[in-house]
Amino acid sequence: MNPRVDVIAHLLEQVRERQPVVHAMTNWVTGSDVANVLHTMGARPILAVALEEVMDITSNADALVLNLGTPTPQRVEAMLKAGHRANTLGRPVIFDPVGVGASRFRIDATRHILSKLRLTIIKGNRAEIGMLTGTGGQLRGVDAATGPEDLRIAGEVLSRQTKAVVIISGQHDLVVDGEEAVVVENGHPLMGQVTGTGCMLSALIAAFAAVEAKPMVAAIGAVACFGLAGERAGHRARGPGTFKAELLDSLFALTPDDVRSGVRINPFDSPV
Amino acid sequence: MNPRVDVIAHLLEQVRERQPVVHAMTNWVTGSDVANVLHTMGARPILAVALEEVMDITSNADALVLNLGTPTPQRVEAMLKAGHRANTLGRPVIFDPVGVGASRFRIDATRHILSKLRLTIIKGNRAEIGMLTGTGGQLRGVDAATGPEDLRIAGEVLSRQTKAVVIISGQHDLVVDGEEAVVVENGHPLMGQVTGTGCMLSALIAAFAAVEAKPMVAAIGAVACFGLAGERAGHRARGPGTFKAELLDSLFALTPDDVRSGVRINPFDSPV
Amino acid sequence: MNPRVDVIAHLLEQVRERQPVVHAMTNWVTGSDVANVLHTMGARPILAVALEEVMDITSNADALVLNLGTPTPQRVEAMLKAGHRANTLGRPVIFDPVGVGASRFRIDATRHILSKLRLTIIKGNRAEIGMLTGTGGQLRGVDAATGPEDLRIAGEVLSRQTKAVVIISGQHDLVVDGEEAVVVENGHPLMGQVTGTGCMLSALIAAFAAVEAKPMVAAIGAVACFGLAGERAGHRARGPGTFKAELLDSLFALTPDDVRSGVRINPFDSPV
Repeated sequence: MNPRVDVIAHLLEQVRERQPVVHAMTNWVTGSDVANVLHTMGARPILAVALEEVMDITSNADALVLNLGTPTPQRVEAMLKAGHRANTLGRPVIFDPVGVGASRFRIDATRHILSKLRLTIIKGNRAEIGMLTGTGGQLRGVDAATGPEDLRIAGEVLSRQTKAVVIISGQHDLVVDGEEAVVVENGHPLMGQVTGTGCMLSALIAAFAAVEAKPMVAAIGAVACFGLAGERAGHRARGPGTFKAELLDSLFALTPDDVRSGVRINPFDSPV
Repeated sequence: MNPRVDVIAHLLEQVRERQPVVHAMTNWVTGSDVANVLHTMGARPILAVALEEVMDITSNADALVLNLGTPTPQRVEAMLKAGHRANTLGRPVIFDPVGVGASRFRIDATRHILSKLRLTIIKGNRAEIGMLTGTGGQLRGVDAATGPEDLRIAGEVLSRQTKAVVIISGQHDLVVDGEEAVVVENGHPLMGQVTGTGCMLSALIAAFAAVEAKPMVAAIGAVACFGLAGERAGHRARGPGTFKAELLDSLFALTPDDVRSGVRINPFDSPV
Repeated sequence: MNPRVDVIAHLLEQVRERQPVVHAMTNWVTGSDVANVLHTMGARPILAVALEEVMDITSNADALVLNLGTPTPQRVEAMLKAGHRANTLGRPVIFDPVGVGASRFRIDATRHILSKLRLTIIKGNRAEIGMLTGTGGQLRGVDAATGPEDLRIAGEVLSRQTKAVVIISGQHDLVVDGEEAVVVENGHPLMGQVTGTGCMLSALIAAFAAVEAKPMVAAIGAVACFGLAGERAGHRARGPGTFKAELLDSLFALTPDDVRSGVRINPFDSPV
C-alpha cells in the first residue's frame, strides 16, 4: 500500500474531528452544493461575500476558498480583501478559476488574484490551467473542451510561478508542485455530468488544507476522498439526479478503511 | 404517428451530439436546477450575469436565456446588453417573464425587453402571458392563479406583436405562433409542486433552439421531452423531494424511441 | 393527547387549503431549499430582494421572512423597507438572524432590524439567541458552538424586549414568549448535518403564521410539523444527500393524523 494512503485516511478523521470553519466565497449557482459538501464532511461552511463583512468572516475561518464563477467587480474586490486577510493570518487560500478565459473580465480578475495574493492550492480543469499558463486550452461554457498538450508541464509552470500546489481536474486528477506529480485515479464519469462537483471539490480541499500543513498532502487527500466517494455514488446512482444525493451520502459514510482499500494514487509518468 | 414526433426524436440526439453552450441569465433561486438540467441534457451551461462580462459570454454561446426572476436594475441592464449581442449575432433568445405583474419593476423591465430585443421564444404561465397581453391573469407569488379566458388568442396576440413563438405552460402546454397552435399533453402534477421546473424548461428550450433553426419545432421539442421526462419521473417519485432527482435521471435516460412512443402532441382545437 | 396537537393538525390543513403567499427575503445559499419547502407545503413562495420591488411584493404577500444569511447593505435596506410595509399592513414578520455575531456588519444590521421593525417571531440557534441578548454564545461558521447557560431565560429576555415569540433551535426546539415555554421534541440529527434546514424552518413558520393569528401557536405548529417530517425522513435516508429529498417528501405526505400521533410537545421545565 502506498504509505500516503494511510496519511489520507488519517486526514479524513482529522477533518471530522476538528470541524474546520471554511469561508467559501463561491458562485451563486453552486453555493448550496458547496455548503452541503462541507457540512457532510463535518466542516463548518460560511459563504459570506459582502465587502462589509469578509474581513471578520475570514478572521474567524480556518481556510478560504476563492471561486471565480459568476464574478462581479464587488465580489472580486471582496475576494482580494479576504485573501489578504487570510495571507496575513497564515491561513490556506484555495483558488478555483472557474471559466477563466470565458471573458476578459475573468482573465483580469485572475491576474489580480495571482499577482496580489499568496495562494496555497489552485484547482482548475485543463482548459483553465492552460489559460492561466498560456499553454493553450478552450472552454465550452465553463467546461474544458481542449487543454495544454502536456498537462504536467502546464501544472509545473503554474506551480513555480505561484508557489501553489496545482490540481488539474479531469477523468483522472493530476496534482503537481515543483517537485513531483501525482495522479489520483478515483472518480466516475457522472461527476462531469452534474453541476457543482468542481466547486464542491475546491471547498473540500480547503477543509483538508485547514487541518494539514503540507498543501500537497491536503490536495491529494481531498481529491482522493472526493473521487472515491464519487466512484461509489456512481455505482449506486441511476443518473445525474440521484447521483448528487448519493455523492453526499457516500462522502458521509466514507471510512478510513475505505480510503485504505479504495484510493488509487500513483506517480505521474505518462500523459493523462 | 405524428411526423413531428420523429423530428423531436432527432432533435434530442442533436442536442446531445452538438452540446450547445447556453448562456442562462437566470434568477438566483433556481440557478443550480438550470445548470443541472442543461448538463444532464449534454448542453454546456454558463450563468454569468455581470454587466462587465455578458458581452463576452453571449458572444461564445449558442443561445441566450433571459429569466426575469429575482431581478435587479443591474441584472436587467445586463440582460438587455446580452440580448442585443445575441440579436446581432443571430443567436436565439428565450425570454421567461417570471412573476411579471408581481411588481411594477418587473412590468417595466419586461416592457424594455419586449421593445428593445428580438425574442425567439417566450415562455410563461397563463397569468404571465395574460399580463403581457393585457388579457387578464393573476399571480400568487410567481404561480398562476388565474389567466386569460382564451389562452390561444392571448398567445397569438403576443406572437404577432413580438414575432416570437409563445409557450403557455400549465397542466398541458400550449405552443403558438401566428399560424398554428399545438398542445403538448405530456407532464405530471408534481412538476407544478417543485420550484424550478419552469426555469429548467426555459433553459432546455434554449438548448433545443441552439440546434434547430425553426423556433416552433425547437419549442415543441423541448416542451415535449421535458414533459415526457416529468411524466416518467412522476411515476417513480414518492414526493416533490425525490421528484427533482428523478426528473434529471429521466431526462438523462430519455431515448429517441421513448420520444417516438411517449410524446403526445396535438393541434389545439379546444380550450385547454 | 395534548390539546395543542389537535390545533396543529388543523393548522397543517389550513396552510394547504389557503396556500399563503410567503415573501422570503433569504440568503442565496438556501433559496432553492426555501422555495421548495414552501411549495411542498402548498404555500406560494416569492424570493424578491431588490429595493425596487420589495414594496410591491410584500404588499401582495401573506407573510414576510427576513433571513440575515449572506447580507449586503442593499439587502438589509430592502429588508427594512419590506418589513415596514408588512408592519403597516399587519402581516407577520419572521426574523432569522443567521450568523449574527459572525461579523460586526451582521450585528449592526440586526440592531437596525430589531429597533425599527415589529417582529412576530424570531428563530435562531442558541449561539444566535445568546448573541442577541448578550447572554453568551459562540458560532463556528453559522453553526452554534456554545450558547447561553439558561436558554429559557435568554428566550424570555428577547421576547420581552421585542414582543416576539422566540424559537431557539437545537436538538430539541424551545418556543418561548413572555408567559410560557414549550419544548418540541421532534427532530433528527441529520437535520443539523445538511445546509438549509434552519432557513427552511423559518419559511415554514411564516406560512403557518400567515394562517394563524396567534404567533405562539403558529411557531409551535411549524416547528412540530417540520421536526416530525425530519424524524420520518431521517429513518428513510441513507445520509445527508438522500435526507434532503426525503425531508420534502415526508413533509408533503404528512397528514393531520400523523401530527396527532407523532408530535411531542411539552412544557419546558428542565434545561434543554
